[in-house]
Amino acid sequence: MPANTALTPVMTAGEINDLLVTVYPQLNEGLRAYEAVSVFPGGCTVRLNADQRHLRPGDTVSGPSLFTLADIGGYVCVLSHAGPDALSVTTNLNINFMRKAPAGPVDGHCRILKLGKSLMVFDIDMTAGGETVAHATGTYSIPPKR
Amino acid sequence: MPANTALTPVMTAGEINDLLVTVYPQLNEGLRAYEAVSVFPGGCTVRLNADQRHLRPGDTVSGPSLFTLADIGGYVCVLSHAGPDALSVTTNLNINFMRKAPAGPVDGHCRILKLGKSLMVFDIDMTAGGETVAHATGTYSIPPKR
Amino acid sequence: MPANTALTPVMTAGEINDLLVTVYPQLNEGLRAYEAVSVFPGGCTVRLNADQRHLRPGDTVSGPSLFTLADIGGYVCVLSHAGPDALSVTTNLNINFMRKAPAGPVDGHCRILKLGKSLMVFDIDMTAGGETVAHATGTYSIPPKR
Amino acid sequence: MPANTALTPVMTAGEINDLLVTVYPQLNEGLRAYEAVSVFPGGCTVRLNADQRHLRPGDTVSGPSLFTLADIGGYVCVLSHAGPDALSVTTNLNINFMRKAPAGPVDGHCRILKLGKSLMVFDIDMTAGGETVAHATGTYSIPPKR
Repeated sequence: MPANTALTPVMTAGEINDLLVTVYPQLNEGLRAYEAVSVFPGGCTVRLNADQRHLRPGDTVSGPSLFTLADIGGYVCVLSHAGPDALSVTTNLNINFMRKAPAGPVDGHCRILKLGKSLMVFDIDMTAGGETVAHATGTYSIPPKR
Repeated sequence: MPANTALTPVMTAGEINDLLVTVYPQLNEGLRAYEAVSVFPGGCTVRLNADQRHLRPGDTVSGPSLFTLADIGGYVCVLSHAGPDALSVTTNLNINFMRKAPAGPVDGHCRILKLGKSLMVFDIDMTAGGETVAHATGTYSIPPKR
Repeated sequence: MPANTALTPVMTAGEINDLLVTVYPQLNEGLRAYEAVSVFPGGCTVRLNADQRHLRPGDTVSGPSLFTLADIGGYVCVLSHAGPDALSVTTNLNINFMRKAPAGPVDGHCRILKLGKSLMVFDIDMTAGGETVAHATGTYSIPPKR
Repeated sequence: MPANTALTPVMTAGEINDLLVTVYPQLNEGLRAYEAVSVFPGGCTVRLNADQRHLRPGDTVSGPSLFTLADIGGYVCVLSHAGPDALSVTTNLNINFMRKAPAGPVDGHCRILKLGKSLMVFDIDMTAGGETVAHATGTYSIPPKR
Protein backbone atom coordinates (compact mmCIF):
# COMPACT_ATOMS: atom_id res chain seq x y z
CA MET A 1 0.00 0.00 0.00
CA PRO A 2 1.29 3.51 -0.69
CA ALA A 3 1.71 6.14 2.04
CA ASN A 4 -1.37 8.15 3.08
CA THR A 5 -0.82 11.17 0.85
CA ALA A 6 -3.78 13.06 2.34
CA LEU A 7 -1.45 14.02 5.20
CA THR A 8 0.62 17.22 5.04
CA PRO A 9 4.11 17.64 6.50
CA VAL A 10 4.79 20.76 8.58
CA MET A 11 8.59 20.42 8.86
CA THR A 12 11.37 19.56 6.39
CA ALA A 13 14.12 16.95 6.81
CA GLY A 14 16.68 19.74 7.32
CA GLU A 15 14.61 21.40 10.06
CA ILE A 16 14.24 18.03 11.78
CA ASN A 17 17.96 17.26 11.69
CA ASP A 18 18.65 20.66 13.26
CA LEU A 19 16.02 19.98 15.93
CA LEU A 20 17.47 16.52 16.73
CA VAL A 21 20.89 18.05 17.46
CA THR A 22 19.27 20.42 19.97
CA VAL A 23 16.76 18.17 21.75
CA TYR A 24 18.46 14.78 21.51
CA PRO A 25 22.25 15.35 21.51
CA GLN A 26 22.92 11.82 22.86
CA LEU A 27 21.60 10.36 19.60
CA ASN A 28 24.52 11.19 17.40
CA GLU A 29 27.19 12.44 19.82
CA GLY A 30 28.50 15.04 17.40
CA LEU A 31 28.46 12.77 14.36
CA ARG A 32 25.46 12.25 12.13
CA ALA A 33 24.93 8.50 12.35
CA TYR A 34 21.12 8.77 12.29
CA GLU A 35 19.49 11.38 10.05
CA ALA A 36 16.30 12.36 8.28
CA VAL A 37 16.80 12.09 4.53
CA SER A 38 13.41 13.22 3.23
CA VAL A 39 9.91 14.05 4.38
CA PHE A 40 6.85 13.57 2.14
CA PRO A 41 3.07 13.51 2.61
CA GLY A 42 2.28 10.54 4.87
CA GLY A 43 5.83 9.41 5.56
CA CYS A 44 9.57 9.97 5.57
CA THR A 45 12.93 8.34 4.86
CA VAL A 46 15.58 8.09 7.57
CA ARG A 47 19.13 6.69 7.41
CA LEU A 48 21.65 4.99 9.66
CA ASN A 49 25.24 5.41 8.48
CA ALA A 50 26.43 2.26 10.25
CA ASP A 51 30.07 2.08 11.33
CA GLN A 52 32.05 -0.11 13.75
CA ARG A 53 30.07 1.18 16.76
CA HIS A 54 26.83 -0.24 15.32
CA LEU A 55 28.02 -3.81 14.72
CA ARG A 56 27.42 -6.97 16.75
CA PRO A 57 29.16 -10.37 16.76
CA GLY A 58 29.25 -11.56 13.13
CA ASP A 59 30.05 -8.02 11.84
CA THR A 60 26.43 -7.19 11.14
CA VAL A 61 24.48 -4.11 12.18
CA SER A 62 23.18 -4.79 15.71
CA GLY A 63 19.54 -5.17 16.67
CA PRO A 64 19.64 -2.13 18.97
CA SER A 65 21.01 -0.01 16.09
CA LEU A 66 18.18 -1.10 13.78
CA PHE A 67 15.66 -0.58 16.62
CA THR A 68 17.04 2.94 17.01
CA LEU A 69 16.61 3.57 13.27
CA ALA A 70 12.98 2.37 13.49
CA ASP A 71 12.34 4.51 16.55
CA ILE A 72 13.91 7.58 14.90
CA GLY A 73 11.77 6.88 11.82
CA GLY A 74 8.62 7.10 13.94
CA TYR A 75 9.91 10.19 15.73
CA VAL A 76 10.57 11.94 12.40
CA CYS A 77 7.05 10.93 11.26
CA VAL A 78 5.56 12.58 14.37
CA LEU A 79 7.77 15.67 14.25
CA SER A 80 7.22 16.22 10.54
CA HIS A 81 3.44 15.71 10.55
CA ALA A 82 2.27 16.72 14.06
CA GLY A 83 4.82 19.46 14.73
CA PRO A 84 8.03 19.90 16.72
CA ASP A 85 6.83 18.69 20.11
CA ALA A 86 9.93 16.78 21.17
CA LEU A 87 8.24 15.07 24.14
CA SER A 88 6.25 12.53 22.11
CA VAL A 89 7.12 9.05 23.32
CA THR A 90 7.12 5.55 21.85
CA THR A 91 4.54 3.31 23.52
CA ASN A 92 5.05 0.14 21.45
CA LEU A 93 7.50 -1.11 18.86
CA ASN A 94 7.56 -4.52 17.19
CA ILE A 95 10.56 -5.37 15.02
CA ASN A 96 11.42 -8.35 12.81
CA PHE A 97 15.02 -8.96 11.79
CA MET A 98 15.32 -10.68 8.43
CA ARG A 99 18.79 -10.43 6.95
CA LYS A 100 22.25 -9.37 8.02
CA ALA A 101 23.23 -5.80 7.17
CA PRO A 102 26.91 -4.93 6.76
CA ALA A 103 28.48 -1.62 7.80
CA GLY A 104 27.30 1.24 5.54
CA PRO A 105 24.01 3.04 4.96
CA VAL A 106 20.72 1.45 6.08
CA ASP A 107 17.66 3.30 4.76
CA GLY A 108 14.37 3.35 6.62
CA HIS A 109 11.24 3.88 4.50
CA CYS A 110 8.42 5.00 6.83
CA ARG A 111 4.67 5.22 6.33
CA ILE A 112 2.18 6.78 8.73
CA LEU A 113 -0.61 4.20 9.08
CA LYS A 114 -2.71 6.40 11.38
CA LEU A 115 -2.30 9.94 12.69
CA GLY A 116 -4.89 10.39 15.44
CA LYS A 117 -5.23 13.05 18.12
CA SER A 118 -3.31 11.09 20.74
CA LEU A 119 -1.59 8.22 18.87
CA MET A 120 0.39 7.80 15.67
CA VAL A 121 0.96 4.35 14.16
CA PHE A 122 3.70 3.82 11.56
CA ASP A 123 5.68 1.12 9.85
CA ILE A 124 9.20 1.10 8.43
CA ASP A 125 11.01 -1.07 5.89
CA MET A 126 14.75 -1.02 6.56
CA THR A 127 16.87 -1.78 3.49
CA ALA A 128 20.59 -2.17 2.81
CA GLY A 129 22.10 -3.00 -0.56
CA GLY A 130 18.62 -3.23 -2.10
CA GLU A 131 17.36 -5.88 0.35
CA THR A 132 14.96 -5.60 3.28
CA VAL A 133 17.02 -6.32 6.41
CA ALA A 134 14.38 -5.52 9.04
CA HIS A 135 10.79 -4.28 9.37
CA ALA A 136 9.09 -2.60 12.32
CA THR A 137 5.68 -1.28 13.34
CA GLY A 138 5.29 1.18 16.18
CA THR A 139 3.06 3.59 18.08
CA TYR A 140 3.92 7.05 19.37
CA SER A 141 1.85 8.79 22.00
CA ILE A 142 1.23 12.46 21.13
CA PRO A 143 0.83 14.63 24.23
CA PRO A 144 -2.02 17.17 24.31
CA LYS A 145 -1.08 20.63 23.03
CA ARG A 146 0.06 22.89 25.85
CA MET B 1 3.25 -17.56 35.88
CA PRO B 2 6.58 -18.61 37.32
CA ALA B 3 9.62 -19.42 35.16
CA ASN B 4 9.89 -22.90 33.66
CA THR B 5 12.05 -24.50 36.34
CA ALA B 6 12.34 -27.77 34.44
CA LEU B 7 15.11 -26.08 32.40
CA THR B 8 18.75 -26.29 33.51
CA PRO B 9 21.33 -23.52 33.06
CA VAL B 10 24.72 -24.48 31.63
CA MET B 11 26.56 -21.17 32.29
CA THR B 12 26.73 -18.77 35.26
CA ALA B 13 26.19 -15.01 35.20
CA GLY B 14 29.93 -14.47 35.70
CA GLU B 15 30.87 -16.73 32.79
CA ILE B 16 28.39 -14.86 30.61
CA ASN B 17 29.73 -11.43 31.54
CA ASP B 18 33.25 -12.62 30.66
CA LEU B 19 31.97 -13.99 27.34
CA LEU B 20 30.16 -10.73 26.48
CA VAL B 21 33.40 -8.75 26.86
CA THR B 22 35.08 -11.08 24.37
CA VAL B 23 32.40 -11.60 21.72
CA TYR B 24 30.50 -8.30 21.91
CA PRO B 25 32.98 -5.58 22.96
CA GLN B 26 30.85 -2.83 21.38
CA LEU B 27 28.12 -3.45 23.94
CA ASN B 28 29.79 -1.88 26.93
CA GLU B 29 32.82 -0.12 25.44
CA GLY B 30 35.02 -0.91 28.44
CA LEU B 31 32.39 -0.04 31.05
CA ARG B 32 29.82 -2.46 32.36
CA ALA B 33 26.56 -0.69 31.51
CA TYR B 34 24.75 -3.93 30.63
CA GLU B 35 25.41 -7.04 32.71
CA ALA B 36 24.03 -10.41 33.72
CA VAL B 37 23.13 -10.35 37.42
CA SER B 38 21.90 -13.91 37.93
CA VAL B 39 20.98 -17.05 36.06
CA PHE B 40 18.40 -19.54 37.36
CA PRO B 41 16.45 -22.50 35.94
CA GLY B 42 14.21 -21.11 33.20
CA GLY B 43 15.38 -17.51 33.28
CA CYS B 44 17.84 -14.80 34.28
CA THR B 45 18.13 -11.26 35.59
CA VAL B 46 20.04 -8.62 33.65
CA ARG B 47 20.76 -5.00 34.50
CA LEU B 48 21.31 -1.67 32.77
CA ASN B 49 23.26 0.80 34.87
CA ALA B 50 21.82 3.83 33.07
CA ASP B 51 23.88 7.00 32.93
CA GLN B 52 23.79 10.19 30.84
CA ARG B 53 24.55 8.26 27.61
CA HIS B 54 21.31 6.26 27.96
CA LEU B 55 18.92 9.20 28.39
CA ARG B 56 16.56 10.79 25.86
CA PRO B 57 14.78 14.18 25.86
CA GLY B 58 12.92 14.47 29.18
CA ASP B 59 15.86 12.88 31.10
CA THR B 60 14.42 9.39 30.95
CA VAL B 61 16.12 6.18 29.86
CA SER B 62 15.79 6.00 26.06
CA GLY B 63 13.76 3.44 24.16
CA PRO B 64 16.87 2.05 22.40
CA SER B 65 18.57 1.56 25.79
CA LEU B 66 15.60 -0.41 27.13
CA PHE B 67 15.39 -2.36 23.86
CA THR B 68 19.07 -3.24 24.28
CA LEU B 69 18.40 -4.44 27.84
CA ALA B 70 15.55 -6.64 26.55
CA ASP B 71 17.72 -7.98 23.74
CA ILE B 72 20.60 -8.73 26.14
CA GLY B 73 18.10 -10.45 28.44
CA GLY B 74 17.14 -12.81 25.63
CA TYR B 75 20.78 -13.31 24.68
CA VAL B 76 21.68 -14.24 28.26
CA CYS B 77 18.72 -16.67 28.33
CA VAL B 78 20.05 -18.39 25.19
CA LEU B 79 23.68 -18.41 26.29
CA SER B 80 22.88 -19.66 29.79
CA HIS B 81 20.47 -22.41 28.73
CA ALA B 82 21.56 -23.46 25.22
CA GLY B 83 25.29 -22.88 25.60
CA PRO B 84 27.86 -20.30 24.51
CA ASP B 85 27.11 -20.13 20.81
CA ALA B 86 27.52 -16.40 20.31
CA LEU B 87 25.98 -16.37 16.84
CA SER B 88 22.35 -16.79 17.94
CA VAL B 89 20.30 -13.90 16.54
CA THR B 90 17.11 -12.08 17.47
CA THR B 91 14.35 -12.64 14.92
CA ASN B 92 11.52 -10.69 16.60
CA LEU B 93 11.18 -8.33 19.55
CA ASN B 94 8.04 -6.55 20.72
CA ILE B 95 8.40 -3.91 23.44
CA ASN B 96 5.89 -1.81 25.39
CA PHE B 97 7.07 1.32 27.19
CA MET B 98 4.96 2.08 30.27
CA ARG B 99 6.66 4.53 32.61
CA LYS B 100 9.63 6.87 32.60
CA ALA B 101 12.81 5.47 34.12
CA PRO B 102 15.38 7.90 35.56
CA ALA B 103 19.16 7.37 35.41
CA GLY B 104 20.26 4.50 37.66
CA PRO B 105 19.78 0.73 37.62
CA VAL B 106 17.05 -0.86 35.50
CA ASP B 107 16.56 -4.56 36.25
CA GLY B 108 15.31 -7.00 33.63
CA HIS B 109 13.54 -10.11 34.93
CA CYS B 110 13.54 -12.71 32.11
CA ARG B 111 11.58 -15.95 31.68
CA ILE B 112 12.13 -18.51 28.96
CA LEU B 113 8.65 -19.24 27.55
CA LYS B 114 9.89 -21.87 25.11
CA LEU B 115 13.27 -23.41 24.43
CA GLY B 116 12.96 -25.39 21.21
CA LYS B 117 15.58 -26.86 18.90
CA SER B 118 15.71 -23.83 16.62
CA LEU B 119 13.85 -21.03 18.45
CA MET B 120 13.76 -19.61 21.98
CA VAL B 121 10.89 -17.37 23.11
CA PHE B 122 11.26 -15.21 26.24
CA ASP B 123 9.70 -12.28 28.02
CA ILE B 124 11.20 -9.62 30.26
CA ASP B 125 9.78 -7.26 32.87
CA MET B 126 11.98 -4.18 33.19
CA THR B 127 11.72 -2.45 36.57
CA ALA B 128 13.22 0.68 38.12
CA GLY B 129 12.49 1.94 41.62
CA GLY B 130 10.06 -0.95 42.16
CA GLU B 131 7.89 -0.10 39.14
CA THR B 132 7.57 -1.82 35.78
CA VAL B 133 8.88 0.66 33.21
CA ALA B 134 8.78 -1.58 30.12
CA HIS B 135 7.96 -5.13 29.05
CA ALA B 136 9.15 -7.07 26.02
CA THR B 137 8.67 -10.43 24.35
CA GLY B 138 11.16 -11.78 21.86
CA THR B 139 12.39 -14.70 19.80
CA TYR B 140 15.98 -15.84 19.23
CA SER B 141 16.97 -18.17 16.43
CA ILE B 142 19.35 -20.90 17.57
CA PRO B 143 21.67 -22.09 14.80
CA PRO B 144 22.20 -25.83 14.34
CA LYS B 145 25.14 -27.29 16.24
CA ARG B 146 28.26 -27.46 14.11
CA MET C 1 6.81 -10.50 38.37
CA PRO C 2 3.55 -10.68 40.28
CA ALA C 3 0.44 -8.72 39.29
CA ASN C 4 0.18 -5.09 40.41
CA THR C 5 -1.84 -5.63 43.57
CA ALA C 6 -2.18 -1.90 44.22
CA LEU C 7 -5.05 -1.93 41.71
CA THR C 8 -8.63 -2.55 42.86
CA PRO C 9 -11.27 -4.43 40.84
CA VAL C 10 -14.71 -2.84 40.52
CA MET C 11 -16.58 -5.81 38.98
CA THR C 12 -16.64 -9.56 39.71
CA ALA C 13 -16.18 -12.41 37.22
CA GLY C 14 -19.91 -13.20 37.43
CA GLU C 15 -20.93 -9.62 36.69
CA ILE C 16 -18.57 -9.60 33.72
CA ASN C 17 -19.93 -12.86 32.27
CA ASP C 18 -23.46 -11.42 32.50
CA LEU C 19 -22.30 -8.23 30.80
CA LEU C 20 -20.57 -10.15 27.98
CA VAL C 21 -23.82 -11.94 27.12
CA THR C 22 -25.59 -8.59 26.78
CA VAL C 23 -23.01 -6.46 24.98
CA TYR C 24 -21.16 -9.08 22.93
CA PRO C 25 -23.63 -11.88 22.08
CA GLN C 26 -21.60 -12.93 19.01
CA LEU C 27 -18.75 -14.06 21.29
CA ASN C 28 -20.33 -17.21 22.62
CA GLU C 29 -23.46 -17.65 20.47
CA GLY C 30 -25.49 -19.01 23.36
CA LEU C 31 -22.79 -21.31 24.69
CA ARG C 32 -20.12 -20.26 27.13
CA ALA C 33 -16.93 -21.02 25.21
CA TYR C 34 -15.10 -17.96 26.54
CA GLU C 35 -15.62 -16.92 30.16
CA ALA C 36 -14.15 -14.96 33.05
CA VAL C 37 -13.07 -17.36 35.81
CA SER C 38 -11.77 -14.95 38.43
CA VAL C 39 -10.88 -11.32 38.99
CA PHE C 40 -8.22 -10.20 41.47
CA PRO C 41 -6.30 -7.01 42.19
CA GLY C 42 -4.21 -6.25 39.10
CA GLY C 43 -5.41 -9.09 36.89
CA CYS C 44 -7.85 -11.84 36.05
CA THR C 45 -8.14 -15.41 34.78
CA VAL C 46 -10.18 -16.22 31.67
CA ARG C 47 -10.92 -19.57 30.02
CA LEU C 48 -11.60 -21.00 26.58
CA ASN C 49 -13.49 -24.28 26.68
CA ALA C 50 -12.18 -25.40 23.29
CA ASP C 51 -14.31 -27.78 21.23
CA GLN C 52 -14.36 -28.87 17.58
CA ARG C 53 -15.22 -25.32 16.40
CA HIS C 54 -11.94 -23.98 17.81
CA LEU C 55 -9.56 -26.46 16.13
CA ARG C 56 -7.35 -26.03 13.07
CA PRO C 57 -5.62 -28.58 10.81
CA GLY C 58 -3.64 -30.91 13.08
CA ASP C 59 -6.46 -30.97 15.71
CA THR C 60 -4.97 -28.19 17.77
CA VAL C 61 -6.69 -25.06 19.08
CA SER C 62 -6.50 -22.49 16.27
CA GLY C 63 -4.53 -19.27 16.38
CA PRO C 64 -7.69 -17.13 16.05
CA SER C 65 -9.24 -18.95 19.04
CA LEU C 66 -6.17 -18.25 21.20
CA PHE C 67 -6.08 -14.66 19.93
CA THR C 68 -9.72 -14.32 20.99
CA LEU C 69 -8.87 -15.68 24.46
CA ALA C 70 -6.05 -13.11 24.77
CA ASP C 71 -8.32 -10.31 23.57
CA ILE C 72 -11.07 -11.34 26.00
CA GLY C 73 -8.46 -11.45 28.77
CA GLY C 74 -7.59 -7.82 28.11
CA TYR C 75 -11.25 -6.87 27.85
CA VAL C 76 -11.98 -8.49 31.24
CA CYS C 77 -8.97 -6.63 32.71
CA VAL C 78 -10.41 -3.31 31.47
CA LEU C 79 -13.99 -4.06 32.50
CA SER C 80 -13.01 -5.33 35.94
CA HIS C 81 -10.60 -2.51 36.79
CA ALA C 82 -11.81 0.54 34.84
CA GLY C 83 -15.54 -0.19 34.92
CA PRO C 84 -18.19 -1.54 32.53
CA ASP C 85 -17.58 0.71 29.56
CA ALA C 86 -18.07 -1.84 26.78
CA LEU C 87 -16.71 0.44 24.06
CA SER C 88 -13.03 0.09 24.99
CA VAL C 89 -11.12 -1.19 21.98
CA THR C 90 -7.92 -3.13 21.39
CA THR C 91 -5.28 -1.02 19.66
CA ASN C 92 -2.42 -3.55 19.58
CA LEU C 93 -1.98 -7.23 20.30
CA ASN C 94 1.19 -9.29 19.90
CA ILE C 95 0.91 -13.06 20.30
CA ASN C 96 3.47 -15.89 20.33
CA PHE C 97 2.34 -19.47 19.76
CA MET C 98 4.56 -21.99 21.51
CA ARG C 99 2.95 -25.40 21.82
CA LYS C 100 -0.08 -27.23 20.45
CA ALA C 101 -3.17 -27.21 22.65
CA PRO C 102 -5.70 -30.04 22.32
CA ALA C 103 -9.48 -29.59 22.69
CA GLY C 104 -10.44 -28.84 26.31
CA PRO C 105 -9.90 -25.93 28.68
CA VAL C 106 -7.23 -23.32 27.97
CA ASP C 107 -6.66 -20.93 30.89
CA GLY C 108 -5.49 -17.36 30.39
CA HIS C 109 -3.61 -15.79 33.31
CA CYS C 110 -3.69 -11.98 32.85
CA ARG C 111 -1.71 -9.20 34.49
CA ILE C 112 -2.33 -5.49 34.09
CA LEU C 113 1.09 -3.98 33.31
CA LYS C 114 -0.21 -0.40 33.20
CA LEU C 115 -3.61 1.14 33.82
CA GLY C 116 -3.41 4.75 32.62
CA LYS C 117 -6.11 7.29 31.90
CA SER C 118 -6.39 6.43 28.22
CA LEU C 119 -4.48 3.14 27.75
CA MET C 120 -4.27 -0.20 29.54
CA VAL C 121 -1.37 -2.60 28.82
CA PHE C 122 -1.64 -6.25 29.83
CA ASP C 123 -0.07 -9.62 29.25
CA ILE C 124 -1.50 -13.11 29.32
CA ASP C 125 0.02 -16.59 29.74
CA MET C 126 -2.21 -19.20 28.11
CA THR C 127 -1.84 -22.69 29.57
CA ALA C 128 -3.32 -26.10 28.80
CA GLY C 129 -2.45 -29.30 30.65
CA GLY C 130 0.06 -27.40 32.81
CA GLU C 131 2.08 -26.06 29.87
CA THR C 132 2.28 -22.59 28.36
CA VAL C 133 0.80 -22.86 24.85
CA ALA C 134 0.79 -19.16 23.93
CA HIS C 135 1.63 -15.74 25.36
CA ALA C 136 0.33 -12.32 24.34
CA THR C 137 0.79 -8.67 25.21
CA GLY C 138 -1.79 -6.07 24.28
CA THR C 139 -3.07 -2.52 24.64
CA TYR C 140 -6.64 -1.36 25.10
CA SER C 141 -7.72 2.22 24.49
CA ILE C 142 -10.01 3.51 27.24
CA PRO C 143 -12.43 6.16 25.96
CA PRO C 144 -12.94 9.34 28.04
CA LYS C 145 -15.76 9.13 30.56
CA ARG C 146 -19.04 10.41 29.12
CA MET D 1 8.19 -0.87 -0.51
CA PRO D 2 6.81 -3.11 -3.24
CA ALA D 3 6.49 -6.88 -2.83
CA ASN D 4 9.55 -9.04 -3.46
CA THR D 5 8.85 -9.93 -7.08
CA ALA D 6 11.85 -12.26 -7.31
CA LEU D 7 9.66 -14.90 -5.63
CA THR D 8 7.53 -17.28 -7.70
CA PRO D 9 4.10 -18.61 -6.70
CA VAL D 10 3.47 -22.34 -7.07
CA MET D 11 -0.33 -22.32 -6.47
CA THR D 12 -3.20 -20.14 -7.69
CA ALA D 13 -5.88 -18.45 -5.55
CA GLY D 14 -8.45 -20.97 -6.82
CA GLU D 15 -6.30 -23.95 -5.90
CA ILE D 16 -5.79 -22.47 -2.44
CA ASN D 17 -9.50 -21.89 -1.85
CA ASP D 18 -10.17 -25.51 -2.79
CA LEU D 19 -7.41 -26.67 -0.42
CA LEU D 20 -8.77 -24.55 2.47
CA VAL D 21 -12.18 -26.25 2.19
CA THR D 22 -10.48 -29.64 2.54
CA VAL D 23 -7.86 -29.04 5.21
CA TYR D 24 -9.50 -26.31 7.29
CA PRO D 25 -13.29 -26.81 7.10
CA GLN D 26 -13.87 -24.98 10.41
CA LEU D 27 -12.66 -21.73 8.82
CA ASN D 28 -15.70 -21.00 6.72
CA GLU D 29 -18.27 -23.56 7.92
CA GLY D 30 -19.68 -24.03 4.44
CA LEU D 31 -19.76 -20.34 3.55
CA ARG D 32 -16.86 -18.48 2.04
CA ALA D 33 -16.29 -15.73 4.58
CA TYR D 34 -12.50 -15.83 4.19
CA GLU D 35 -11.02 -16.35 0.73
CA ALA D 36 -7.92 -15.92 -1.39
CA VAL D 37 -8.57 -13.30 -4.08
CA SER D 38 -5.26 -13.29 -5.93
CA VAL D 39 -1.72 -14.58 -5.74
CA PHE D 40 1.23 -12.75 -7.29
CA PRO D 41 5.03 -12.95 -7.05
CA GLY D 42 5.97 -12.10 -3.47
CA GLY D 43 2.47 -11.74 -2.05
CA CYS D 44 -1.28 -12.23 -2.23
CA THR D 45 -4.64 -10.59 -1.58
CA VAL D 46 -7.16 -12.19 0.77
CA ARG D 47 -10.68 -11.07 1.71
CA LEU D 48 -13.08 -11.25 4.63
CA ASN D 49 -16.71 -10.87 3.61
CA ALA D 50 -17.80 -9.63 7.04
CA ASP D 51 -21.37 -10.23 8.15
CA GLN D 52 -23.20 -10.13 11.50
CA ARG D 53 -21.11 -13.04 12.89
CA HIS D 54 -17.92 -10.99 12.54
CA LEU D 55 -19.06 -7.86 14.42
CA ARG D 56 -18.30 -6.76 17.98
CA PRO D 57 -19.99 -4.19 20.25
CA GLY D 58 -20.22 -0.93 18.27
CA ASP D 59 -21.14 -2.81 15.04
CA THR D 60 -17.58 -2.97 13.80
CA VAL D 61 -15.64 -5.95 12.52
CA SER D 62 -14.18 -7.68 15.60
CA GLY D 63 -10.50 -7.94 16.44
CA PRO D 64 -10.54 -11.75 16.23
CA SER D 65 -12.08 -11.55 12.72
CA LEU D 66 -9.33 -9.19 11.54
CA PHE D 67 -6.71 -11.36 13.26
CA THR D 68 -8.10 -14.35 11.36
CA LEU D 69 -7.86 -12.41 8.09
CA ALA D 70 -4.22 -11.58 8.86
CA ASP D 71 -3.46 -15.18 9.81
CA ILE D 72 -5.14 -16.47 6.62
CA GLY D 73 -3.14 -13.93 4.63
CA GLY D 74 0.08 -15.41 5.98
CA TYR D 75 -1.17 -18.94 5.41
CA VAL D 76 -1.99 -18.14 1.77
CA CYS D 77 1.49 -16.60 1.38
CA VAL D 78 3.09 -19.82 2.65
CA LEU D 79 0.83 -22.16 0.65
CA SER D 80 1.21 -20.18 -2.56
CA HIS D 81 4.98 -19.74 -2.39
CA ALA D 82 6.30 -22.74 -0.41
CA GLY D 83 3.74 -25.31 -1.55
CA PRO D 84 0.64 -26.99 -0.15
CA ASP D 85 2.00 -28.20 3.17
CA ALA D 86 -1.03 -27.50 5.35
CA LEU D 87 0.81 -28.06 8.64
CA SER D 88 2.75 -24.78 8.62
CA VAL D 89 1.99 -22.90 11.83
CA THR D 90 1.97 -19.28 12.95
CA THR D 91 4.66 -18.59 15.55
CA ASN D 92 4.12 -14.84 16.04
CA LEU D 93 1.56 -12.26 14.95
CA ASN D 94 1.49 -8.58 15.86
CA ILE D 95 -1.60 -6.57 14.89
CA ASN D 96 -2.50 -2.88 15.14
CA PHE D 97 -6.14 -1.81 14.91
CA MET D 98 -6.54 1.66 13.46
CA ARG D 99 -10.09 2.37 12.32
CA LYS D 100 -13.52 0.79 12.61
CA ALA D 101 -14.59 -1.41 9.71
CA PRO D 102 -18.31 -1.87 9.02
CA ALA D 103 -19.87 -5.13 7.75
CA GLY D 104 -18.84 -5.82 4.15
CA PRO D 105 -15.60 -6.77 2.41
CA VAL D 106 -12.25 -6.20 4.11
CA ASP D 107 -9.29 -6.73 1.79
CA GLY D 108 -5.91 -7.91 3.04
CA HIS D 109 -2.89 -6.91 0.94
CA CYS D 110 0.01 -9.22 1.87
CA ARG D 111 3.72 -9.02 1.18
CA ILE D 112 6.30 -11.71 1.90
CA LEU D 113 9.15 -9.92 3.71
CA LYS D 114 11.31 -13.03 3.96
CA LEU D 115 10.91 -16.57 2.71
CA GLY D 116 13.61 -18.65 4.41
CA LYS D 117 14.04 -22.40 4.73
CA SER D 118 12.26 -22.64 8.08
CA LEU D 119 10.51 -19.26 8.57
CA MET D 120 8.37 -16.90 6.47
CA VAL D 121 7.80 -13.30 7.58
CA PHE D 122 4.96 -11.27 6.03
CA ASP D 123 2.94 -8.14 6.55
CA ILE D 124 -0.63 -7.27 5.65
CA ASP D 125 -2.52 -4.00 5.17
CA MET D 126 -6.23 -4.53 5.81
CA THR D 127 -8.47 -2.02 4.05
CA ALA D 128 -12.21 -1.34 3.94
CA GLY D 129 -13.85 1.43 1.97
CA GLY D 130 -10.45 2.65 0.79
CA GLU D 131 -9.04 3.13 4.29
CA THR D 132 -6.51 1.09 6.26
CA VAL D 133 -8.41 -0.43 9.20
CA ALA D 134 -5.67 -2.69 10.58
CA HIS D 135 -2.09 -3.79 9.89
CA ALA D 136 -0.29 -6.93 10.98
CA THR D 137 3.13 -8.55 10.76
CA GLY D 138 3.61 -12.25 11.33
CA THR D 139 5.88 -15.27 11.16
CA TYR D 140 5.04 -18.77 9.96
CA SER D 141 7.19 -21.78 10.74
CA ILE D 142 7.72 -24.02 7.71
CA PRO D 143 8.26 -27.67 8.67
CA PRO D 144 11.07 -29.63 6.99
CA LYS D 145 10.05 -31.49 3.83
CA ARG D 146 9.10 -35.09 4.59
